[in-house]
Amino acid sequence: MNPLTATNPFFAGLFEDAETAALFSGEATATAFLAYEKALTEAAAEVGVIEADLAARAVTAMAGFAPDLGDLRPDLQTDGMAVPGYVRQLKAHVGAELAPAVHPGATSQDLIDSYMSLALQSANEVFITRLEGLIAALTALEAAQAGHTLMGRTRMQAALPIAATHRIATWRRPLERHLARLHALRPEVELLQFGGPVGDRQRSAPKGEALAAALATRLALYNPPASWHSERDGLAAYAAWLSGLTGSLGKIGQDICLMVQQGVDELDQAGGGSSSAMAHKQNPVTAELLVTLARFTAGQLPLMHQALGHEQERSGAMWTLEWLVLPAMVCATGRALSLSTEQVLAITRIGTALPA
Amino acid sequence: MNPLTATNPFFAGLFEDAETAALFSGEATATAFLAYEKALTEAAAEVGVIEADLAARAVTAMAGFAPDLGDLRPDLQTDGMAVPGYVRQLKAHVGAELAPAVHPGATSQDLIDSYMSLALQSANEVFITRLEGLIAALTALEAAQAGHTLMGRTRMQAALPIAATHRIATWRRPLERHLARLHALRPEVELLQFGGPVGDRQRSAPKGEALAAALATRLALYNPPASWHSERDGLAAYAAWLSGLTGSLGKIGQDICLMVQQGVDELDQAGGGSSSAMAHKQNPVTAELLVTLARFTAGQLPLMHQALGHEQERSGAMWTLEWLVLPAMVCATGRALSLSTEQVLAITRIGTALPA
Amino acid sequence: MNPLTATNPFFAGLFEDAETAALFSGEATATAFLAYEKALTEAAAEVGVIEADLAARAVTAMAGFAPDLGDLRPDLQTDGMAVPGYVRQLKAHVGAELAPAVHPGATSQDLIDSYMSLALQSANEVFITRLEGLIAALTALEAAQAGHTLMGRTRMQAALPIAATHRIATWRRPLERHLARLHALRPEVELLQFGGPVGDRQRSAPKGEALAAALATRLALYNPPASWHSERDGLAAYAAWLSGLTGSLGKIGQDICLMVQQGVDELDQAGGGSSSAMAHKQNPVTAELLVTLARFTAGQLPLMHQALGHEQERSGAMWTLEWLVLPAMVCATGRALSLSTEQVLAITRIGTALPA
Amino acid sequence: MNPLTATNPFFAGLFEDAETAALFSGEATATAFLAYEKALTEAAAEVGVIEADLAARAVTAMAGFAPDLGDLRPDLQTDGMAVPGYVRQLKAHVGAELAPAVHPGATSQDLIDSYMSLALQSANEVFITRLEGLIAALTALEAAQAGHTLMGRTRMQAALPIAATHRIATWRRPLERHLARLHALRPEVELLQFGGPVGDRQRSAPKGEALAAALATRLALYNPPASWHSERDGLAAYAAWLSGLTGSLGKIGQDICLMVQQGVDELDQAGGGSSSAMAHKQNPVTAELLVTLARFTAGQLPLMHQALGHEQERSGAMWTLEWLVLPAMVCATGRALSLSTEQVLAITRIGTALPA
Repeated sequence: MNPLTATNPFFAGLFEDAETAALFSGEATATAFLAYEKALTEAAAEVGVIEADLAARAVTAMAGFAPDLGDLRPDLQTDGMAVPGYVRQLKAHVGAELAPAVHPGATSQDLIDSYMSLALQSANEVFITRLEGLIAALTALEAAQAGHTLMGRTRMQAALPIAATHRIATWRRPLERHLARLHALRPEVELLQFGGPVGDRQRSAPKGEALAAALATRLALYNPPASWHSERDGLAAYAAWLSGLTGSLGKIGQDICLMVQQGVDELDQAGGGSSSAMAHKQNPVTAELLVTLARFTAGQLPLMHQALGHEQERSGAMWTLEWLVLPAMVCATGRALSLSTEQVLAITRIGTALPA
Repeated sequence: MNPLTATNPFFAGLFEDAETAALFSGEATATAFLAYEKALTEAAAEVGVIEADLAARAVTAMAGFAPDLGDLRPDLQTDGMAVPGYVRQLKAHVGAELAPAVHPGATSQDLIDSYMSLALQSANEVFITRLEGLIAALTALEAAQAGHTLMGRTRMQAALPIAATHRIATWRRPLERHLARLHALRPEVELLQFGGPVGDRQRSAPKGEALAAALATRLALYNPPASWHSERDGLAAYAAWLSGLTGSLGKIGQDICLMVQQGVDELDQAGGGSSSAMAHKQNPVTAELLVTLARFTAGQLPLMHQALGHEQERSGAMWTLEWLVLPAMVCATGRALSLSTEQVLAITRIGTALPA
Repeated sequence: MNPLTATNPFFAGLFEDAETAALFSGEATATAFLAYEKALTEAAAEVGVIEADLAARAVTAMAGFAPDLGDLRPDLQTDGMAVPGYVRQLKAHVGAELAPAVHPGATSQDLIDSYMSLALQSANEVFITRLEGLIAALTALEAAQAGHTLMGRTRMQAALPIAATHRIATWRRPLERHLARLHALRPEVELLQFGGPVGDRQRSAPKGEALAAALATRLALYNPPASWHSERDGLAAYAAWLSGLTGSLGKIGQDICLMVQQGVDELDQAGGGSSSAMAHKQNPVTAELLVTLARFTAGQLPLMHQALGHEQERSGAMWTLEWLVLPAMVCATGRALSLSTEQVLAITRIGTALPA
Repeated sequence: MNPLTATNPFFAGLFEDAETAALFSGEATATAFLAYEKALTEAAAEVGVIEADLAARAVTAMAGFAPDLGDLRPDLQTDGMAVPGYVRQLKAHVGAELAPAVHPGATSQDLIDSYMSLALQSANEVFITRLEGLIAALTALEAAQAGHTLMGRTRMQAALPIAATHRIATWRRPLERHLARLHALRPEVELLQFGGPVGDRQRSAPKGEALAAALATRLALYNPPASWHSERDGLAAYAAWLSGLTGSLGKIGQDICLMVQQGVDELDQAGGGSSSAMAHKQNPVTAELLVTLARFTAGQLPLMHQALGHEQERSGAMWTLEWLVLPAMVCATGRALSLSTEQVLAITRIGTALPA
């Protein structure tokens, strides 16, 4: 809901992370929806919910389907989501004979939540690669700054000299833990959603469990023991991971902002911002932005935790809230990771070499 | 930072408010920046900071300037804002002779904050019109439902019958107060920013105060007694107004969600959402979205209050945080206002007519 | 819900503000409840809802009533508030004959909200006194530091020299605005609550408005045009004021933390903290605590804005949330104000005297 | 900072959880501090940092030490924490000869963070017991309500009938996951803190690692690879767990509030609140309070994530913020768990028995 940071060329470049942004584009949604519908039809045939030949022909007919996006808009306003219109279009596309083989036993939330799971799966792969790169950059920085010393500060006051590697290690270690946490979290969020209208798989009974298993396999998602339409604890835990990681990156940014102050001068970096009025300044723009993104992401977190209050079998209000919040957290985290690596690689000195 | 709600056609239409979104577009920024620069040059001439003829020629030369937006991007990354690049382009556009008459005594923050003030000024005009319309719709609803009664509920339990007008009035009265508050707040946020590099107007001394007054007049903004580079209390108060208003609209939405429950049935409305799986449902999509937007906006509010911690003369980190948060709050409020009026106008019955 | 900061002698002293804390004590509640009940009986007699002699005798009988607090506890658990038990005790205290003259036309929320209004009224008087004192201290500091100069910093980088008075003024001006805002806000929160069971004053009809007016006069509270059981916009606005003020105080704290850094050395203060391990440190404990309290108070704010979602005629869940949040915000603000004045008075130097 | 909910007898009983509250009392702090100091002296002797006989005599002398709590207060105000005063008292208590054997190589943060770890360890044991009890109660409820059916609701609208066990399972499953998450989290937060003044164990070098290991063993805490003075990611993750759990409990409360509405009537419970004005009401006080506690705890969460921004080697401001927030979250979670079990046990009916 923020055109300034989304599309305004005077501002948006500051916040943009193309790789994670692409996961939430219309193209990504269309691809995921169609993949889901095809896999669902195949899985339904596999477990005997629909007839195999009908399914095969329906899957073939679905290939190349491209929704009329303009036509989705009125449905979106009326239904609060685009899926009813999308499924109507898809059924029309395959024709009346094959339509019964489309969307069998599923509901809108199955499609949207599974799309989100696929997006998070891709995001996680991006995050793992970037985190590994950042940790490597910090490890290299520790090697490069070994033997340097700087004034340790507590409560922002000079305390005792510390090794440069000591401070850098306080930046690196949390990231190693965040990486381990992400590996543990993936099965909690890269989850198939399949529950049908009220989440109990009654429309595909007694084949619901088998159908879900076959569908999860096809989509390369984890298969939960039941649908999770109103059980959002995995997403809440994941949002906390995003916020925790950006918070740890924000600590790096905050430290760097303090280290490059004139009078403190404990860090040199290549590049650095300028000023429209004062050419001599070397503004720590990247480091500041890490602080900003940490604050922003932490600020979004409680909304994902409030959304745990999904009432009854499905909450329109809380589900919609997730859409407003979670993609922003993912993209902010992506941006913070990239910036952090840029920032770490730009550091040319921390502290002072000890006299030989 | 949320492509899903900003541009993804499967989702964005739910959140879109074209009129407020336009205020944060690149076009709006370009228009405001140029208006500021022209008015600044004129005002500087008026108070004798630059020579009148030079100023007049510079203003003429500025006409029709269109920045090379692609060229702004590297500056944005390096400087954390597009203004240094923008001013450099503008000075190049007018040429070396006239360049000294461009951006006299100003700094990047003067330009960006004043643009934001102009955007909020326009937003406020939109809000006033919509609030007046919504209050009128509620007043008409009270008239239409006069004589109806419904079960008053406290702690979600049936308590005693109340007049339909009683509940509607609890929706209307806060909006009247929010309207009055907005009128009082406008001079706190529709504020010229003019302070120069460190906010003390030393680069235009001793004419800084006069220059600011002339500039404010030209831009039809309020003229504060001093620059407010690191004094963000007006923006924090304004953010609270946005959140307060959407919160009051969320209460209307929440009540309606409860009133249309089968078994409660205290409200009928035209339209209403459907389901991909259950054709008989009449989902209260609009009312739910009001709840969502209220939660979302309240969730952003503390970030604007944390941004009060602008350190020293200018905080890159906290200023940037405002950009991530405030436009989203404005657009969410705009959307909530439009939806509320749609929602109120759609109501065809509240409670039951009393027996004659 | 935090014994560490409330009563643990190893921590609580850091956060304690005796004057505001007293407003939320059991004694304050008991005093306010009894004042309300007596004023209500008197007002009811004045407007003819109950008989004058009965009222007078009931008021006399109420004098000296002290509730059995232990006996309130089971009711509190069952009813979610102590008022039903309290009123039962009070009616028993005055006896069966006079009991009808007690609590006429009122509901639990009338009593609790009005108590809160009285507490806020007292808090506001404390805040006004302290704000005036703090503004005076800053004004004196500006006079004392006139002629001093320090390095202005933007984005935490040295920019251009500024007058010490310039920075101090950026601390003072927001406080002057917060003071003006508080005066404007008082009629929005120092409000009588009187609505009866479902907020429509039907139990005192047709004398409800007159009764409310008489009651407000007796309690020296503002008399709103209607009850505000589920209209919490005034409280939300007030919470934003608290957060805005502590945020502006946090900016002062943040600046001081940065100014006392070794290497920056732009501020000297009397006192300052020590360390269990390093005797030479002068920790800026007071300034840091201002930052902490600003973060804390901003963090509570969205909860008061979410509480705008009071559903229907009374929300148990959202009302209870206010109790968890608003007193903490008031006490944190009280503490921040006292600390700020201590902090400002402790400053002995900002910047450097200009050479003559 | 909230006397209303901490000690005011008209309100506090609603929020009180004696077992978790006790973990944050002065008594608990005193016990933990002394245990730490004794274990530290013993461990220091074990690894050869101090002389064994001196250590043994110091440990004996420490027995029975009770700090003069009133005397801590001025230090608390000056130093921002009570430890410097506490250690001074303890050294005085053992006398000048033994004093060097007290607090060797440690800093205030080592003591306070380790106390907090011990408190969280005890809290976690409470949580595990309660969670297991609650899950058992839900399992029993599923058995008791087997064969019952109720109307499934999506977007608060009647959708399709579901089994009562389906809805109850959506309450139970997240709790089972939260329990598993807690077991995984314990080694991330039940952590020894030992780092010395700037966190690098230089004052106990080269025996610091051995000393930490010996100390952790004695205190039955996990021994991290390094001190974590400014690495607060474990605490942030833990806070998210608390908020996630209370959020899942809030969903149960929210559902129950909706189910007991007159007109919906899908749930009966023993007990239930009353009203000072309407004797017939059965207010869902417990269920509402679960909603309140969920909102409250989610609201505190971002503050723990912002506190990740511990600058440099120790942040006074962010560390103090943890004290304001984390104990409140623990106690709110404790209360929510107890209430949930009470609530579940009180349920006598969900939905309707299917016709035979």
